[in-house]
Amino acid sequence: MPNEFTIERRVQFAETDLAGVLHFSNYYRMMEELEHAFWRSLGESVVARGMKEGTISWPRVATSCEYKEPARFEEVLELALAVAKIGNRSVTYEVTFRRDGRTIAIGSMTAVCTIMHHGHFERAAIPDSIRAKLESHLASA
Amino acid sequence: MPNEFTIERRVQFAETDLAGVLHFSNYYRMMEELEHAFWRSLGESVVARGMKEGTISWPRVATSCEYKEPARFEEVLELALAVAKIGNRSVTYEVTFRRDGRTIAIGSMTAVCTIMHHGHFERAAIPDSIRAKLESHLASA
Amino acid sequence: MPNEFTIERRVQFAETDLAGVLHFSNYYRMMEELEHAFWRSLGESVVARGMKEGTISWPRVATSCEYKEPARFEEVLELALAVAKIGNRSVTYEVTFRRDGRTIAIGSMTAVCTIMHHGHFERAAIPDSIRAKLESHLASA
Amino acid sequence: MPNEFTIERRVQFAETDLAGVLHFSNYYRMMEELEHAFWRSLGESVVARGMKEGTISWPRVATSCEYKEPARFEEVLELALAVAKIGNRSVTYEVTFRRDGRTIAIGSMTAVCTIMHHGHFERAAIPDSIRAKLESHLASA
Repeated sequence: MPNEFTIERRVQFAETDLAGVLHFSNYYRMMEELEHAFWRSLGESVVARGMKEGTISWPRVATSCEYKEPARFEEVLELALAVAKIGNRSVTYEVTFRRDGRTIAIGSMTAVCTIMHHGHFERAAIPDSIRAKLESHLASA
Repeated sequence: MPNEFTIERRVQFAETDLAGVLHFSNYYRMMEELEHAFWRSLGESVVARGMKEGTISWPRVATSCEYKEPARFEEVLELALAVAKIGNRSVTYEVTFRRDGRTIAIGSMTAVCTIMHHGHFERAAIPDSIRAKLESHLASA
Repeated sequence: MPNEFTIERRVQFAETDLAGVLHFSNYYRMMEELEHAFWRSLGESVVARGMKEGTISWPRVATSCEYKEPARFEEVLELALAVAKIGNRSVTYEVTFRRDGRTIAIGSMTAVCTIMHHGHFERAAIPDSIRAKLESHLASA
Repeated sequence: MPNEFTIERRVQFAETDLAGVLHFSNYYRMMEELEHAFWRSLGESVVARGMKEGTISWPRVATSCEYKEPARFEEVLELALAVAKIGNRSVTYEVTFRRDGRTIAIGSMTAVCTIMHHGHFERAAIPDSIRAKLESHLASA
């Protein structure tokens, strides 16, 4: 897919469960690792301190995942992120999990641009400099 | 809601993140804990060994969560499970997270009845004895 | 043992691994849950905001665990905490994991009294009011 | 140190806690990831199926860690493994966590060679072919 951002990620032992497969909750942790690697690839961090607006972070308001085939210990998965939608204050990512080129799971995360003040959160418009970077990765661009 | 099954669950320190709140992936672990407590309340286990069909388990094929308000360390949440839908081979749960009676998150999980053979999985019709127990908790019953 | 503080804790599915047993790292999470329940039993929290000294917390400087028998999904363990040693600025806990009265693991944690200032940590003498409570649970008392 | 095996590992968001630092239990997960990468570097897996002895795995009998300085989100740590001791049926690893060349934590794990039979474990002598590989990495060699 054009504009995909990808990483490789090995399934670790502690991420498996007694059924012998990657625990379903750990797909979400992998999605987040991918998202944060994506931010770094943009020259940013998902936790941006020292912006003029304050410290910006991106809590999720919605996440989902569909599981097609199990993943197992030591397998190396390809995780691919596409920016599906950019709103005024939110961004939606689609994540595809592949093994040997075959899709084994598909996830989605919607995160909201937020200014953190002493442990409280306030939604905010996405700063222009960040919006431009996200838009350059929009899946439909 | 009629037929809800509920547990109380305290947010633990290791479940928080640097933003000071319950990490979004841990809602899924809590949903699973609730699901398994529900199975025990039915006199069953989510991993049923020694059924005549073999060992039955219930891997997820789809999960999702919407987050409305953050949860914090040491808060005691109420987790409520409703059986939303029972198919031939699958069951869908809806999970409501409440704090002081107020809904802070809503999740969903669809699990598929599966016979495990030596680390492989085969989908199977839900055994009648289990179906009857699930139906007695159907949200719309 | 005199002065033990105990809780019951069920082994959850996500805490097991492909070997079918409680993952060794999760004993440490259980130790921490026990420690924090102990603080609550003293009428305190391990994260004490609004003390005159600032926000006090108790990061670990050393932890260890010996594993004698595996623990499995849905087993209910008894976790017992004893205060082994109280120093000027640190406290050492010993934790015993039991199943059906039989010890299956033994752990230890040394935590240091710390004042948190904007994400930095400074070691501090244990406040007298807290020291008195800890001493009342000293194993050798 | 001679014979060290090292990997780089970034601290992930979900591994931090509300104190803003890498949660102490996650050092153990990192030690295990390092151990398993070490096995792969030997051309082996920590879970060796199809050995003539059966499936061999290496559950821990003892683990410990000392924490000198906190680690934070997105920092890249160097994890170094040394084989400290090889017994008849066990191996002890020492793990050093470094950031920018500076040691921030030191851990230890003792694992026991075990044959798995249908979810049960039996200790066994380390097979010669594996012993030879471990010995070539002995810290004092």
